[in-house]
Amino acid sequence: MKARVYVMPKNGVLDPQGKAIGHALEGLGFAGVNDVRAGKVIELDLAETNPDAARKTAEEMARKLLANTVIESFRVELA
Amino acid sequence: MKARVYVMPKNGVLDPQGKAIGHALEGLGFAGVNDVRAGKVIELDLAETNPDAARKTAEEMARKLLANTVIESFRVELA
Repeated sequence: MKARVYVMPKNGVLDPQGKAIGHALEGLGFAGVNDVRAGKVIELDLAETNPDAARKTAEEMARKLLANTVIESFRVELA
Repeated sequence: MKARVYVMPKNGVLDPQGKAIGHALEGLGFAGVNDVRAGKVIELDLAETNPDAARKTAEEMARKLLANTVIESFRVELA
C-alpha cells in the first residue's frame, strides 16, 4: 500500500527556500507571485495492506523522522 | 489562487535521499517498508484568479525552474 507524507513549514515559520524560489521566479519574469512555500513529499511503499494501519504507521514515521513537528506540519494521504 | 507543484524523481532515476530515509526508518524499527521516494512540493500563491491560466503559469514555472524535467516529473494541483 502506498502512502504519501506531505511535510510543509508551519504558518509563521520562516521559509528561506520558498523565498528564494519566489525571487527566482520573479527574476525569470513571472509576475503576480504573492507567496511561495517549499515543502517535502515522501512516497512510502508499505507492505501493510490495511489502510487504517498503513495510515497510522505513516503518521508515526512522520512524527518520529520525516517531519520536525516543532516547525513543520504534515499530512498523510493513502494512494 | 493557490497552486501546488509536486516534483518527484522519475521512475528508474536513482533517489539517494529516498534510500537514506528508507534505511533510517529501518533503523528506527519500522518493518515492511518496500520503497521510499523523496520529492518536493512547492505551494504557490498566485495573483491570477482564472484556474486555467493559473495552471498554465504553474506548469511553465515547473518546466523553467521548479523541476529538472530530465530526471524529475511534476504535477500541478490547484487548491
